[in-house]
Order: sequence, then structure tokens, then C-alpha cells
Amino acid sequence: MSDKDHHRKRKAEREALREELLEAQFELRTLQHGSVLLLISGNDFAGKAEIIHSFYEWLDNRYLNTRAFALPKGVERRMPRLWRYWRTLPPTGELGFYLGSWYHQPLMRLSRGQMSIPRFTAQMQQVLRFERLLNDEGIILVKIWLHLTDDQQGKHQRIDPALLKQTVAMREWGDFSAADYEKVREGARLMTELTSTQGAPWIRVPAADPHERDQRIGQIVLEAMRQRLACEPAPRPVYGWQPAQRDYLGQLDYSLALDKDDYQAQLETWQTRLRELIQHPRFARRSLLLVFEGSDAAGKGGTIRRITQCLDPRILRVHGTSAPTDEERRMPYLWRFWRRIPAPGNVVVFDRSYYGRVLVERVEGFCEAPDWQRAYGEINDFEQQLSDRGTLVIKFWLAITEEEQLKRFKAREESPVKRYKLTEEDWRNRERWPDYAQAMNDMVEHCSTRQAPWHLIPAENKRYARIQALRIVCETLTDALKEH
Amino acid sequence: MSDKDHHRKRKAEREALREELLEAQFELRTLQHGSVLLLISGNDFAGKAEIIHSFYEWLDNRYLNTRAFALPKGVERRMPRLWRYWRTLPPTGELGFYLGSWYHQPLMRLSRGQMSIPRFTAQMQQVLRFERLLNDEGIILVKIWLHLTDDQQGKHQRIDPALLKQTVAMREWGDFSAADYEKVREGARLMTELTSTQGAPWIRVPAADPHERDQRIGQIVLEAMRQRLACEPAPRPVYGWQPAQRDYLGQLDYSLALDKDDYQAQLETWQTRLRELIQHPRFARRSLLLVFEGSDAAGKGGTIRRITQCLDPRILRVHGTSAPTDEERRMPYLWRFWRRIPAPGNVVVFDRSYYGRVLVERVEGFCEAPDWQRAYGEINDFEQQLSDRGTLVIKFWLAITEEEQLKRFKAREESPVKRYKLTEEDWRNRERWPDYAQAMNDMVEHCSTRQAPWHLIPAENKRYARIQALRIVCETLTDALKEH
Repeated sequence: MSDKDHHRKRKAEREALREELLEAQFELRTLQHGSVLLLISGNDFAGKAEIIHSFYEWLDNRYLNTRAFALPKGVERRMPRLWRYWRTLPPTGELGFYLGSWYHQPLMRLSRGQMSIPRFTAQMQQVLRFERLLNDEGIILVKIWLHLTDDQQGKHQRIDPALLKQTVAMREWGDFSAADYEKVREGARLMTELTSTQGAPWIRVPAADPHERDQRIGQIVLEAMRQRLACEPAPRPVYGWQPAQRDYLGQLDYSLALDKDDYQAQLETWQTRLRELIQHPRFARRSLLLVFEGSDAAGKGGTIRRITQCLDPRILRVHGTSAPTDEERRMPYLWRFWRRIPAPGNVVVFDRSYYGRVLVERVEGFCEAPDWQRAYGEINDFEQQLSDRGTLVIKFWLAITEEEQLKRFKAREESPVKRYKLTEEDWRNRERWPDYAQAMNDMVEHCSTRQAPWHLIPAENKRYARIQALRIVCETLTDALKEH
Repeated sequence: MSDKDHHRKRKAEREALREELLEAQFELRTLQHGSVLLLISGNDFAGKAEIIHSFYEWLDNRYLNTRAFALPKGVERRMPRLWRYWRTLPPTGELGFYLGSWYHQPLMRLSRGQMSIPRFTAQMQQVLRFERLLNDEGIILVKIWLHLTDDQQGKHQRIDPALLKQTVAMREWGDFSAADYEKVREGARLMTELTSTQGAPWIRVPAADPHERDQRIGQIVLEAMRQRLACEPAPRPVYGWQPAQRDYLGQLDYSLALDKDDYQAQLETWQTRLRELIQHPRFARRSLLLVFEGSDAAGKGGTIRRITQCLDPRILRVHGTSAPTDEERRMPYLWRFWRRIPAPGNVVVFDRSYYGRVLVERVEGFCEAPDWQRAYGEINDFEQQLSDRGTLVIKFWLAITEEEQLKRFKAREESPVKRYKLTEEDWRNRERWPDYAQAMNDMVEHCSTRQAPWHLIPAENKRYARIQALRIVCETLTDALKEH
């Protein structure tokens, strides 16, 4: 076949693929079935930039989300490893391309002998849980490994200065000899073995011929989109999930109370203590996440205020959690909380939180059983990642009895100050009291981890509850700042 | 009056105020009439933190947006001065509190003799335009200056170690002697004279007595909210606005064209040039914002791709501008673009942009005449601030004739690849061609500034248009990187 024909043939192939890709992209946007995220890894001279450009050329680039991650720097190094990837996920109906994904740094450190195989394996386990969550949230992951043999790579370096310039700009690996690359390939073999799953397979793509390379990857993306379009992501049943056997709420002593003077005295003591602790130099390297849950009118707001009163507004953020915005609905449910985690030296308070997934969303049927059943593990992972980076996660459930709630609702109806806090919904929720109680018990059972246990506080007496919360925050901080 | 009565009286006052504040806050949220932003400045020992805490105690703190700004650091220092304030504005229906607002740094530098009065005055002019925009977008600004006499300040420092500890944490001014504070007061007098406006007044509040101080500020916020509630923010007529007298579109030569070979040759030349320019070390300190506007089917997408092909995806972001999300609707219209401006060394491309305000929003009547009439000046301010920080703003209008558009629409209907780009709306817009032409001419007339002129490119011939755009980008970059 003459060069001309050869060229014409390739052009035709490219055009044909483009039509199919555009059609699939269009349907993905209309159906809002989920999204596709492509991770592109591998040899530095395999033309990662060109691949992205092909997609920019093929697809409607207003709905392509390309992100390229260099080694973490600045605040990124002091936040959980997956934070920056969480923040940039593609919204439902769109495509994402990650260069230098969560695989890059571990693989680099492994192949440079800076990380042991067991540690590498452990990190890959965390990655697998993360990718499983993305799958369950409707994101199809495709992981591409671009392969070049040494001499192909040498050829690239020799013959194509323009490509070289381009790829140099895209270097992720720095100056690597052929021997180094051999180590990388070894590491990559281990990595792909450990992390190839049905929902997020690794696909090895020969990168020597740019046309073949891009056609192949285009086909892969097309299949992924079609797989997504074929059916609405169906929640996978969670096996062996057990409801709580204990009634944690029932075992609380609701008679606990504090009289006014005692309260005033203790309030002063603990608030002064908290003020000191937060200003402790060592806190600058830690951070604090306070989660407040509890039935309506349990006194969350008042308790939160007694704590925030001690804090410099500059390091404090209070987030009330209500229904997600439409931007948030197009992301995995944890996204809006990942967005709000505290930076080092800061304090974030959630007045209601991501636990809504296993409380209101479960009880009101906003998500299906498998969704809230898997959430317990996902939430534990989330909190684990936070505490691994020095964030203290302290969780409070303020518990009141059904009768007490009724009293407080009635009081609210009278009080002009509190009238606004009472809605129709609050009355509706009351009818579901037993369901909420069960959900709450399950939550405590499954999410009371060593690093972030649940603190159940009988709040029949507001003064008692406020002091308890303050005391627990102070004591947790004291321990944490003592350490190392 | 006995201490006890005195105390009781104050408690009653506080409670009464709280009721009114809560009621107003509730209505503000329900009516979504706009928002109130409070700037708190002044003496370091006046208890800024306590004031915030009072509001946390009084109001539903899920809808309070407190932000405290230290002196800019890291990337903040390389972005426009107002960028970090833009990003954190309170959404419609909510309250915002800024500590260390856009007044802090200029005043500090002025009173330390690090900034001349003329320069200070110029900055205040910019601030006035910014605040006027916020007003017009429905945000009421209240600017509090907390005042203490020297001996009051001394007294505070002496008698209240807890307050001192708290305020030390809140120090904005560092170690200032009484003499220094005198200079600050002088500067503050000038500042408040220059920037007190009807929509954003400065109010001097004596801070010696915490109770009086907080009651006073509470009252001020209450009045502000009521003022906002009293009436939907009515657009202020813009005086002396003139439509364009020239027909810029009519004067273009639509016959300009390039043949295929010429195009291929030039494409290669300019793309290589662009690749080199972007990798120029000096570009790391600059950034590039490309704005593409033009009638439907003018070829924006294709032209953008010819440019992005030369860029490392790591420094590139392409944003398609369509209808704002509900999060964006609760913010001033420029907010979603401030969010997306390029960091140093980066390139951002807007496929349609903030000019939608004076194009589609004007023509389709999504905003009222005063709104789009004031937008020209607001947009010029925006671009001015970008170029002051080293961002090159390059704006393209791709122009085609009505006939050519019809041809392309028909072609799109046939082509499977382009079918998806054609919507009912595109046909509707065609009927408004003259309106869009007028709007476009007005835009060119009012927004072709020295630092960011409009480039009108006849795009009847796509090849010609693409090369023109590439050439202009390269030439602008070349000049910019030569400079200084």
C-alpha cells in the first residue's frame, strides 16, 4: 500500500472513531448515567501529552476534565494523599483524564527503592478501596499503561526533537536510565497485578506508533463509555452486613445533669483549657474535625457555640449540612466533605455531616440499601486518611428521649427566637423515631473506630451535654499534643 | 441601679436584639433578596474575635460566612489583590463577616510609610469600584471601624489577660506602639473619608465596653438586613451610556482566506513558535487568558484546539461557559470566572465567557438594561486587575456572515460528528442576528482596552481564522516576554 493510501486509510480510521466517540460522549451527557475516568501512566517518552491532544481534537472539550499532577507540594503534602484527586473528579456525564495519578508517586518511590514492597502493597490496598468507591458511585475507571521498549524509547529521543521537547515538558520520572526504567517496569508489573479489577482494569498499550496508540486508547474509552451507557450503575449488594445487636441509645443515663453554678464554673475551666490547647505550638501541625449528630432539638447548635467561642475565627469554619447543591449531586457523596476538611492548624465543625448517608438518606430512602451499607466502610476509610495526616476526628451524638424532644418542639413553637428552627420536616422525622434509632445504633456499631470513636452524650440536660463535649475535646487534644 | 439589675437589664437587651436578628436572618434566607457583608477593622485590642462570637451566639451560624485574612502569602501574592475576597463572598440570603478585609494591607502600609498617599488613594478608587459592583449585585456592605483610646487600650492590655490572649491571637497589626496607632488612626481617617459611600458606609464604633460594642454592631447589622429586606435590589440606571456608533462587524473583509498548503506550512510554524514561547522561562511568572466569542458555528472549538495542541495539559484548562449552576446563581455574575483565572505559568481558555453578560444575557433579557450597561466597566476592571498581575488577556471574536452560518448549520445537520453541536437554541439565536450584532459592536466599543483589545477575525474561511488567532497569541506573548 502506497504511503498516500496508508495515510488516507489512517485518516479514515481516525474520523470513524471520532464519530463514535462524539456520539457516546453526547449520550453520556444526556443520560447523566455516571462518568469515565482515564488514568494514563507509563513511559515518559510515550507521548502522554499527544494522547490528551487527540482527545481534545476528537471530543467536545468543554466536557473533558484533564488534570495533571506533579509531585505534591505546599499544602498538598500536609493533606491526605487522595485529597487533591478527590477535589478534581469528573462530574456525572463527563470524562476525566488524570496524568500522574495516585499511582505515580508510590511507583516512583518503589522503583527507586525508597519504599518497601509491603508498604507499597498496603498503599495499593487503600487505592483499591478508593477505586471501588468510585465505581460504586458510577465512575468507570480505565487505567492505561503506556509501554515502550528501550530502543523504541531511544529512537523517540533521537528522531523527534519536537516530540522530545513536548515529552520533556511532560517528564514525570526525571532523568532515568534504561536500567532505572527496567526497575519501573518491574514495579509496574507488581502494581498492575495488585490493582487490576473488573471495575478498574489496567490496560497495557504499546506506544511506539502514535496513530495505533491513540486509536487503541480511543477504542478503550469508547468501550468504557458504552459500558456506562448500557445500564444505569446498579448498586452492588453488600454481603454479610449486620445490623447492630446492641441498643446504644437505650443504655444511656438520661438523668445526668448539672446545676447552674456547677455549669458556670466548669464552662470557664474547660473553655480556658481549650483556648490554651488550640494555641499550643504543636497544634499548628495537627487539625481538628468535630462532627455533631443527634436528633432534632438535641442541642447541637448550643453545644457547638460553647466550643467555637474559644476559637480564633481565623482558624475556624462551621459547616451546616443540608441537601446537596446540583454541583454536589454530580459528584460522589463524600466529595462535598473532602472539599471542607481542615488544613493544618485549623478547626472544622460539621453540624450534621457525611453520616447523613447512613442516617437521613438511609431512613428516607434517598439511597438504596447497598449504598448506605457500603458507606460505613467508606466513611471509616475517609476518617482513617484524615487521622493518618494528623487530623483529630471527634464525633458526638447528642441523645435525647422522644418525650424531651416533644417538649422542646413545643417550646420552640412558642419562642420567637427558636421558631425558625422548627420545620414541618422535624415533625415528620419524629414519626420515624424507631428507624432513626436503629440507623444510629448501626452507625455507632460500624463506625466507632480506634482513631475516631463515637461519643454518645445524653443531652436531656443541655448544661451537662455541653460540658461533656468540651471536656472530651480538651482531653482528646491533650493526649494528641502530648504524643511523640 | 444595682449591679444585679444592671446585669439583668443588659441580658434582656441582648435577648431582644437576638430575636430581631434571628427573624431578619430567617427572612433574608427565605426571600433570597441579596446578602449583607460586614467588614470589621480597627484596633487590635477592640475584641474582633468576641464580636464574631456574639454573632455566632445570636444567629443561625450555618448561614454565617466568617473569613479572616492574614497578609497574603504563597499563590495569593501572585494573584490579583481582590481574588481571595472574590472567592469567599457570602451567597445570596446569607451573612458574611470579613476580618482583615481589602482595607487592611493598604492601611497598614500607608501608616508605616511604605505606601504614598497618591498610591493609597488610587487603590481606594479601585476598592470603591469593587464595592459598587457588590452593591449592584445585591450585597450590602457595612464597614465597622472599632475605636479605642490609648488608655482604654492600655486598660484592656492590663486588666483582661484572657481577652489579651484572645486578642493577641487576633493581632493584625503586630507590635504597634501608641505612636504607631496614632499613625493608623490618621490613615484610617483618610481611608474612611475616601471610601464612605451610601451603599457601603464606614461606621465608627467605640469598643471600650464589650456589651455596648456588640449591641451597637448587632443593631447595625439588623438595620442592614432590614434595608435589604425592604425592597428587592433595584438596578441603578447607568447615566451617559452610549451605544457604539461604528459597525465593526460590517467593516471586516470576509473574503480573506488561506489555501491548504499555505495553511499547513503556517500552522506548523506558529504552533512550534507557541510551544517555544510557553516553555520560555519568563512565562513562569506570567499567565495567559484566552477568551473566545463569536456567533454559533463560527469555528471557536476548532481554533481553540489548534492552540491547545501546543500546550502541556498540565498548565492548561479549557472552560466552556454555559448557564450558571445554582451555586453560581447565588453569587455575583463574575464570581464563577474569578474562580477560574489562571495561576502563574498557566493557560486558561474560555469558550464563551463573562462577555455573555453583555451578549446573550442582554439580548435574551436575562438581566436588565442597567445591569448589562454597568457590566462593560466591571469587565474592564476585572481584566485590568488580571493584567496588573501579569496575566495576558487576549480576546477573539470569530466573525462569519449570516449566510455562512446557515450553510454551516445545514452541514451540521448532515454531519454525524457535528450533529450534537446544533440545538434548537442555535436556530432561535439566528433570528436575533441584528440584536447580537449591535451587542457585539457595543462590546468592542466599550471593552477594547489598551491592555486587552478585542481581536476581530473574519472566520468565513476557517483556515485563515485559525492562523490569525495563533499568530496573535504568539505575537502578544513575544512582546510580553521581551518586556522589562
